[in-house]
Amino acid sequence: MKMLEERIRAEGKLMPGNIVKVDGFLNHRVDVALLRALAREFKAHFKDRRPTLIMTVEASGIPLATVCAEEFGVPLLFAKKAKSDNIEGGLLTSEIMSYTYNKKVKLIVSGEWLSAKDRVLIIDDFMARGEAMRGLKKIIAQAGAELVGIGIAIEKGYQGGGDGLRADGIDCYSLAIIEESCGESIRFR
Amino acid sequence: MKMLEERIRAEGKLMPGNIVKVDGFLNHRVDVALLRALAREFKAHFKDRRPTLIMTVEASGIPLATVCAEEFGVPLLFAKKAKSDNIEGGLLTSEIMSYTYNKKVKLIVSGEWLSAKDRVLIIDDFMARGEAMRGLKKIIAQAGAELVGIGIAIEKGYQGGGDGLRADGIDCYSLAIIEESCGESIRFR
Repeated sequence: MKMLEERIRAEGKLMPGNIVKVDGFLNHRVDVALLRALAREFKAHFKDRRPTLIMTVEASGIPLATVCAEEFGVPLLFAKKAKSDNIEGGLLTSEIMSYTYNKKVKLIVSGEWLSAKDRVLIIDDFMARGEAMRGLKKIIAQAGAELVGIGIAIEKGYQGGGDGLRADGIDCYSLAIIEESCGESIRFR
Repeated sequence: MKMLEERIRAEGKLMPGNIVKVDGFLNHRVDVALLRALAREFKAHFKDRRPTLIMTVEASGIPLATVCAEEFGVPLLFAKKAKSDNIEGGLLTSEIMSYTYNKKVKLIVSGEWLSAKDRVLIIDDFMARGEAMRGLKKIIAQAGAELVGIGIAIEKGYQGGGDGLRADGIDCYSLAIIEESCGESIRFR
Protein backbone atom coordinates (compact mmCIF):
# COMPACT_ATOMS: atom_id res chain seq x y z
CA MET A 1 0.00 0.00 0.00
CA LYS A 2 1.69 3.10 -1.35
CA MET A 3 0.41 5.46 1.35
CA LEU A 4 1.82 3.34 4.17
CA GLU A 5 5.16 2.75 2.44
CA GLU A 6 5.58 6.49 1.93
CA ARG A 7 4.76 7.15 5.56
CA ILE A 8 7.34 4.59 6.69
CA ARG A 9 9.97 6.15 4.42
CA ALA A 10 9.13 9.68 5.63
CA GLU A 11 8.80 9.04 9.38
CA GLY A 12 10.21 5.60 10.14
CA LYS A 13 13.54 5.65 11.93
CA LEU A 14 16.17 3.11 10.95
CA MET A 15 17.94 1.71 13.98
CA PRO A 16 20.88 -0.66 14.35
CA GLY A 17 19.94 -4.32 13.95
CA ASN A 18 17.57 -3.84 11.04
CA ILE A 19 14.93 -2.24 13.28
CA VAL A 20 12.49 0.25 11.78
CA LYS A 21 10.77 2.40 14.40
CA VAL A 22 7.31 3.72 13.61
CA ASP A 23 6.35 4.80 17.12
CA GLY A 24 5.30 8.26 15.88
CA PHE A 25 2.27 7.00 13.95
CA LEU A 26 1.63 3.29 14.50
CA ASN A 27 2.55 1.70 17.82
CA HIS A 28 3.00 4.35 20.52
CA ARG A 29 1.60 7.62 19.22
CA VAL A 30 -1.08 6.53 16.77
CA ASP A 31 -2.45 8.35 13.71
CA VAL A 32 -6.02 7.08 13.81
CA ALA A 33 -6.91 8.63 10.42
CA LEU A 34 -4.16 6.50 8.87
CA LEU A 35 -5.56 3.41 10.64
CA ARG A 36 -8.95 4.10 9.06
CA ALA A 37 -7.35 4.05 5.60
CA LEU A 38 -5.54 0.79 6.41
CA ALA A 39 -8.74 -0.76 7.76
CA ARG A 40 -10.59 0.09 4.53
CA GLU A 41 -7.85 -1.66 2.57
CA PHE A 42 -8.26 -4.76 4.77
CA LYS A 43 -12.02 -4.57 4.29
CA ALA A 44 -11.60 -4.52 0.51
CA HIS A 45 -9.25 -7.52 0.64
CA PHE A 46 -11.05 -9.70 3.19
CA LYS A 47 -14.73 -8.82 2.79
CA ASP A 48 -15.59 -12.06 0.95
CA ARG A 49 -14.18 -14.05 3.88
CA ARG A 50 -17.09 -12.75 6.01
CA PRO A 51 -15.28 -12.65 9.37
CA THR A 52 -17.48 -12.74 12.48
CA LEU A 53 -14.70 -11.62 14.81
CA ILE A 54 -11.49 -9.60 14.64
CA MET A 55 -8.71 -10.87 16.91
CA THR A 56 -5.42 -9.32 17.93
CA VAL A 57 -2.90 -9.43 20.78
CA GLU A 58 -2.48 -6.66 23.32
CA ALA A 59 -1.24 -3.99 23.20
CA SER A 60 -0.01 -2.29 20.03
CA GLY A 61 -2.24 -4.24 17.65
CA ILE A 62 -5.37 -3.01 19.40
CA PRO A 63 -5.82 0.43 17.76
CA LEU A 64 -5.75 -0.96 14.20
CA ALA A 65 -7.85 -4.00 15.16
CA THR A 66 -10.45 -1.71 16.78
CA VAL A 67 -10.88 0.34 13.60
CA CYS A 68 -11.01 -2.86 11.51
CA ALA A 69 -13.72 -4.33 13.76
CA GLU A 70 -15.79 -1.21 13.16
CA GLU A 71 -15.22 -1.44 9.38
CA PHE A 72 -16.42 -5.07 9.34
CA GLY A 73 -19.20 -4.43 11.88
CA VAL A 74 -18.07 -7.28 14.13
CA PRO A 75 -16.67 -7.47 17.68
CA LEU A 76 -12.99 -7.24 18.55
CA LEU A 77 -11.39 -9.82 20.83
CA PHE A 78 -7.88 -9.16 22.07
CA ALA A 79 -5.70 -11.84 23.65
CA LYS A 80 -4.17 -10.83 26.99
CA LYS A 81 -0.57 -11.47 27.89
CA ALA A 82 -1.09 -12.08 31.60
CA LYS A 83 -3.93 -13.39 33.69
CA SER A 84 -5.99 -10.53 35.09
CA ASP A 85 -8.97 -10.65 37.43
CA ASN A 86 -11.10 -9.51 34.53
CA ILE A 87 -11.21 -12.70 32.52
CA GLU A 88 -11.99 -16.21 33.64
CA GLY A 89 -13.61 -19.48 32.76
CA GLY A 90 -12.41 -21.96 30.14
CA LEU A 91 -9.26 -20.09 29.29
CA LEU A 92 -7.62 -20.77 25.96
CA THR A 93 -3.87 -20.26 26.15
CA SER A 94 -0.76 -20.47 24.03
CA GLU A 95 2.85 -19.73 24.89
CA ILE A 96 4.93 -17.66 22.48
CA MET A 97 8.35 -16.04 22.40
CA SER A 98 8.17 -12.24 22.42
CA TYR A 99 11.26 -10.84 20.71
CA THR A 100 10.15 -7.29 21.55
CA TYR A 101 10.52 -8.04 25.25
CA ASN A 102 12.92 -11.00 24.85
CA LYS A 103 10.92 -13.39 27.00
CA LYS A 104 8.25 -16.06 26.84
CA VAL A 105 4.72 -14.76 27.04
CA LYS A 106 1.45 -16.61 27.52
CA LEU A 107 -1.47 -15.47 25.37
CA ILE A 108 -4.83 -15.83 27.10
CA VAL A 109 -8.37 -15.69 25.73
CA SER A 110 -11.60 -16.49 27.53
CA GLY A 111 -13.28 -19.46 25.84
CA GLU A 112 -16.59 -17.73 26.45
CA TRP A 113 -16.01 -15.28 23.59
CA LEU A 114 -14.61 -17.57 20.89
CA SER A 115 -16.63 -20.49 19.55
CA ALA A 116 -16.65 -23.06 16.74
CA LYS A 117 -19.06 -20.80 14.86
CA ASP A 118 -16.54 -17.97 14.59
CA ARG A 119 -14.76 -17.00 11.40
CA VAL A 120 -11.73 -15.10 12.69
CA LEU A 121 -9.69 -12.42 10.95
CA ILE A 122 -6.45 -11.65 12.83
CA ILE A 123 -5.18 -8.08 12.59
CA ASP A 124 -1.85 -6.84 13.93
CA ASP A 125 0.38 -3.81 13.50
CA PHE A 126 3.65 -5.68 13.00
CA MET A 127 4.86 -9.12 12.07
CA ALA A 128 8.44 -10.35 12.27
CA ARG A 129 8.90 -14.06 12.99
CA GLY A 130 5.13 -14.53 13.29
CA GLU A 131 5.20 -15.83 16.87
CA ALA A 132 2.08 -13.95 17.98
CA MET A 133 0.25 -15.16 14.87
CA ARG A 134 1.13 -18.77 15.60
CA GLY A 135 -0.06 -18.31 19.19
CA LEU A 136 -3.42 -16.91 18.09
CA LYS A 137 -3.74 -19.63 15.44
CA LYS A 138 -3.41 -22.28 18.16
CA ILE A 139 -6.00 -20.55 20.33
CA ILE A 140 -8.44 -20.33 17.40
CA ALA A 141 -7.90 -24.04 16.71
CA GLN A 142 -8.50 -24.88 20.41
CA ALA A 143 -11.90 -23.18 20.13
CA GLY A 144 -12.69 -25.05 16.91
CA ALA A 145 -13.10 -21.70 15.15
CA GLU A 146 -11.94 -20.96 11.62
CA LEU A 147 -9.04 -18.64 10.80
CA VAL A 148 -10.09 -16.84 7.60
CA GLY A 149 -7.10 -14.55 7.20
CA ILE A 150 -4.36 -12.44 8.71
CA GLY A 151 -3.98 -8.72 8.04
CA ILE A 152 -0.73 -7.00 8.99
CA ALA A 153 0.20 -3.34 8.65
CA ILE A 154 3.99 -3.80 8.46
CA GLU A 155 5.70 -7.12 7.83
CA LYS A 156 9.43 -7.58 8.17
CA GLY A 157 9.76 -9.81 5.13
CA TYR A 158 13.33 -10.82 5.91
CA GLN A 159 12.29 -12.45 9.20
CA GLY A 160 10.16 -15.05 7.44
CA GLY A 161 7.02 -15.06 9.60
CA GLY A 162 4.65 -14.08 6.79
CA ASP A 163 6.12 -16.48 4.26
CA GLY A 164 5.78 -19.34 6.73
CA LEU A 165 2.07 -18.60 7.20
CA ARG A 166 1.54 -18.27 3.42
CA ALA A 167 3.25 -21.62 2.91
CA ASP A 168 0.64 -23.05 5.29
CA GLY A 169 -2.07 -21.79 2.91
CA ILE A 170 -3.18 -18.86 5.07
CA ASP A 171 -4.32 -15.66 3.35
CA CYS A 172 -1.77 -13.39 5.00
CA TYR A 173 -2.07 -9.86 3.61
CA SER A 174 0.53 -7.27 4.66
CA LEU A 175 0.15 -3.65 3.60
CA ALA A 176 3.89 -2.96 3.61
CA ILE A 177 6.58 -5.62 3.51
CA ILE A 178 10.05 -4.39 4.41
CA GLU A 179 12.51 -6.57 2.56
CA GLU A 180 15.63 -4.84 3.73
CA SER A 181 16.68 -1.73 5.59
CA CYS A 182 20.21 -0.68 4.95
CA GLY A 183 21.89 2.57 5.98
CA GLU A 184 19.44 5.33 5.18
CA SER A 185 17.18 3.39 2.82
CA ILE A 186 14.31 0.91 3.08
CA ARG A 187 13.48 -1.52 0.30
CA PHE A 188 9.89 -2.81 0.13
CA ARG A 189 8.88 -6.11 -1.44
CA MET B 1 -25.27 7.46 30.30
CA LYS B 2 -28.44 5.38 30.17
CA MET B 3 -27.30 3.12 27.31
CA LEU B 4 -24.13 2.06 29.11
CA GLU B 5 -25.87 1.54 32.46
CA GLU B 6 -28.45 -0.69 30.78
CA ARG B 7 -25.72 -2.70 29.07
CA ILE B 8 -23.89 -3.18 32.38
CA ARG B 9 -27.12 -4.34 34.04
CA ALA B 10 -27.93 -6.71 31.16
CA GLU B 11 -24.49 -8.23 30.56
CA GLY B 12 -22.23 -7.33 33.48
CA LYS B 13 -21.47 -10.21 35.82
CA LEU B 14 -21.37 -9.55 39.53
CA MET B 15 -18.49 -11.36 41.18
CA PRO B 16 -17.44 -11.76 44.81
CA GLY B 17 -15.56 -8.74 46.18
CA ASN B 18 -17.74 -6.10 44.54
CA ILE B 19 -16.27 -6.87 41.09
CA VAL B 20 -18.40 -6.20 38.01
CA LYS B 21 -17.12 -8.03 34.93
CA VAL B 22 -17.82 -6.49 31.55
CA ASP B 23 -15.40 -8.59 29.50
CA GLY B 24 -18.10 -9.43 26.96
CA PHE B 25 -18.37 -5.90 25.57
CA LEU B 26 -15.73 -3.56 27.05
CA ASN B 27 -12.35 -4.97 28.05
CA HIS B 28 -11.73 -8.35 26.41
CA ARG B 29 -14.33 -8.87 23.70
CA VAL B 30 -15.18 -5.33 22.62
CA ASP B 31 -18.39 -3.98 21.06
CA VAL B 32 -16.90 -1.27 18.87
CA ALA B 33 -20.31 0.17 17.92
CA LEU B 34 -20.93 0.81 21.63
CA LEU B 35 -17.52 2.49 21.90
CA ARG B 36 -18.49 4.84 19.06
CA ALA B 37 -21.57 5.93 21.04
CA LEU B 38 -19.48 6.47 24.17
CA ALA B 39 -16.87 8.45 22.21
CA ARG B 40 -19.58 10.76 20.84
CA GLU B 41 -20.74 11.41 24.39
CA PHE B 42 -17.16 12.31 25.40
CA LYS B 43 -16.91 14.56 22.34
CA ALA B 44 -20.07 16.42 23.36
CA HIS B 45 -18.77 16.87 26.92
CA PHE B 46 -15.14 17.78 26.21
CA LYS B 47 -15.22 19.53 22.81
CA ASP B 48 -14.74 23.03 24.29
CA ARG B 49 -11.55 21.81 26.00
CA ARG B 50 -9.96 21.47 22.52
CA PRO B 51 -7.67 18.50 23.27
CA THR B 52 -4.67 18.04 20.96
CA LEU B 53 -3.97 14.50 22.14
CA ILE B 54 -5.86 11.56 23.64
CA MET B 55 -3.87 9.53 26.17
CA THR B 56 -4.57 6.17 27.77
CA VAL B 57 -2.72 3.24 29.32
CA GLU B 58 -2.28 -0.12 27.62
CA ALA B 59 -4.12 -2.37 27.16
CA SER B 60 -7.85 -2.33 27.82
CA GLY B 61 -8.25 1.45 27.55
CA ILE B 62 -6.91 1.44 23.99
CA PRO B 63 -10.05 0.50 22.01
CA LEU B 64 -12.15 3.31 23.52
CA ALA B 65 -9.29 5.81 23.35
CA THR B 66 -8.74 4.93 19.66
CA VAL B 67 -12.36 5.69 18.76
CA CYS B 68 -12.24 8.90 20.84
CA ALA B 69 -9.07 10.05 19.05
CA GLU B 70 -10.87 9.62 15.74
CA GLU B 71 -13.90 11.58 17.03
CA PHE B 72 -11.69 14.49 18.11
CA GLY B 73 -9.46 14.23 15.03
CA VAL B 74 -6.26 14.09 17.12
CA PRO B 75 -3.57 11.43 17.69
CA LEU B 76 -3.72 8.76 20.36
CA LEU B 77 -0.76 8.18 22.68
CA PHE B 78 -0.83 5.13 24.92
CA ALA B 79 1.50 4.66 27.87
CA LYS B 80 3.33 1.34 27.91
CA LYS B 81 3.71 -0.78 31.01
CA ALA B 82 7.16 -2.16 30.24
CA LYS B 83 10.14 -0.96 28.30
CA SER B 84 10.09 -2.33 24.76
CA ASP B 85 12.60 -1.92 21.98
CA ASN B 86 10.05 0.19 20.16
CA ILE B 87 10.23 3.35 22.24
CA GLU B 88 13.24 5.29 23.37
CA GLY B 89 14.71 8.69 24.06
CA GLY B 90 13.73 11.03 26.88
CA LEU B 91 11.37 8.57 28.55
CA LEU B 92 8.74 9.96 30.89
CA THR B 93 7.86 7.43 33.60
CA SER B 94 5.65 7.03 36.63
CA GLU B 95 5.22 4.08 38.96
CA ILE B 96 1.71 3.01 39.93
CA MET B 97 0.08 0.15 41.81
CA SER B 98 -1.97 -2.09 39.54
CA TYR B 99 -4.75 -3.71 41.57
CA THR B 100 -5.82 -5.75 38.53
CA TYR B 101 -2.49 -7.57 38.57
CA ASN B 102 -1.64 -6.85 42.23
CA LYS B 103 1.82 -5.48 41.54
CA LYS B 104 3.69 -2.25 40.92
CA VAL B 105 3.83 -1.21 37.28
CA LYS B 106 5.88 1.48 35.59
CA LEU B 107 4.08 3.60 33.00
CA ILE B 108 6.36 4.71 30.17
CA VAL B 109 5.87 7.37 27.49
CA SER B 110 8.41 8.65 24.98
CA GLY B 111 9.03 12.36 25.62
CA GLU B 112 9.21 12.78 21.86
CA TRP B 113 5.42 12.57 21.50
CA LEU B 114 4.25 14.70 24.42
CA SER B 115 5.21 18.38 24.68
CA ALA B 116 4.36 21.52 26.62
CA LYS B 117 2.06 22.54 23.76
CA ASP B 118 -0.24 19.56 24.26
CA ARG B 119 -3.71 19.74 25.75
CA VAL B 120 -4.34 16.18 26.89
CA LEU B 121 -7.62 14.36 27.36
CA ILE B 122 -7.18 11.04 29.18
CA ILE B 123 -9.61 8.27 28.26
CA ASP B 124 -9.89 4.90 30.02
CA ASP B 125 -12.36 2.04 30.21
CA PHE B 126 -12.37 1.66 33.99
CA MET B 127 -11.45 3.61 37.07
CA ALA B 128 -11.31 2.29 40.61
CA ARG B 129 -8.74 3.90 42.91
CA GLY B 130 -7.50 6.10 40.07
CA GLU B 131 -3.87 4.87 40.19
CA ALA B 132 -3.43 4.83 36.41
CA MET B 133 -4.89 8.33 36.17
CA ARG B 134 -2.47 9.66 38.77
CA GLY B 135 0.39 8.02 36.89
CA LEU B 136 -0.61 9.64 33.59
CA LYS B 137 -1.18 12.97 35.35
CA LYS B 138 2.43 12.89 36.59
CA ILE B 139 3.75 12.06 33.13
CA ILE B 140 1.74 14.93 31.59
CA ALA B 141 3.14 17.28 34.24
CA GLN B 142 6.72 16.06 33.53
CA ALA B 143 6.22 17.08 29.89
CA GLY B 144 4.81 20.48 30.91
CA ALA B 145 1.60 19.62 29.02
CA GLU B 146 -1.90 20.49 30.20
CA LEU B 147 -4.42 17.90 31.39
CA VAL B 148 -7.79 19.19 30.14
CA GLY B 149 -9.99 16.34 31.35
CA ILE B 150 -10.49 12.67 32.09
CA GLY B 151 -13.19 10.54 30.45
CA ILE B 152 -13.99 7.14 31.93
CA ALA B 153 -16.50 4.57 30.70
CA ILE B 154 -17.15 2.85 34.05
CA GLU B 155 -16.13 4.29 37.41
CA LYS B 156 -16.36 2.32 40.63
CA GLY B 157 -17.63 5.21 42.71
CA TYR B 158 -17.14 3.42 46.02
CA GLN B 159 -13.37 3.17 45.46
CA GLY B 160 -12.92 6.92 45.52
CA GLY B 161 -10.55 7.46 42.59
CA GLY B 162 -12.89 9.75 40.65
CA ASP B 163 -13.92 11.82 43.66
CA GLY B 164 -10.25 12.40 44.52
CA LEU B 165 -9.55 13.72 41.02
CA ARG B 166 -12.67 15.94 41.11
CA ALA B 167 -11.58 17.32 44.48
CA ASP B 168 -8.34 18.33 42.73
CA GLY B 169 -10.41 20.39 40.27
CA ILE B 170 -10.10 17.98 37.33
CA ASP B 171 -13.04 17.62 34.93
CA CYS B 172 -13.46 13.88 35.40
CA TYR B 173 -16.48 12.66 33.45
CA SER B 174 -17.59 9.03 33.90
CA LEU B 175 -20.38 7.60 31.77
CA ALA B 176 -21.51 5.11 34.41
CA ILE B 177 -20.63 5.31 38.09
CA ILE B 178 -21.27 2.12 40.03
CA GLU B 179 -22.05 3.11 43.59
CA GLU B 180 -22.68 -0.33 44.91
CA SER B 181 -23.11 -3.87 43.68
CA CYS B 182 -24.91 -6.16 46.03
CA GLY B 183 -26.21 -9.66 45.33
CA GLU B 184 -27.94 -9.50 41.96
CA SER B 185 -28.29 -5.73 41.72
CA ILE B 186 -26.15 -2.77 40.76
CA ARG B 187 -26.87 0.75 41.98
CA PHE B 188 -25.58 3.63 39.85
CA ARG B 189 -24.83 7.11 41.17
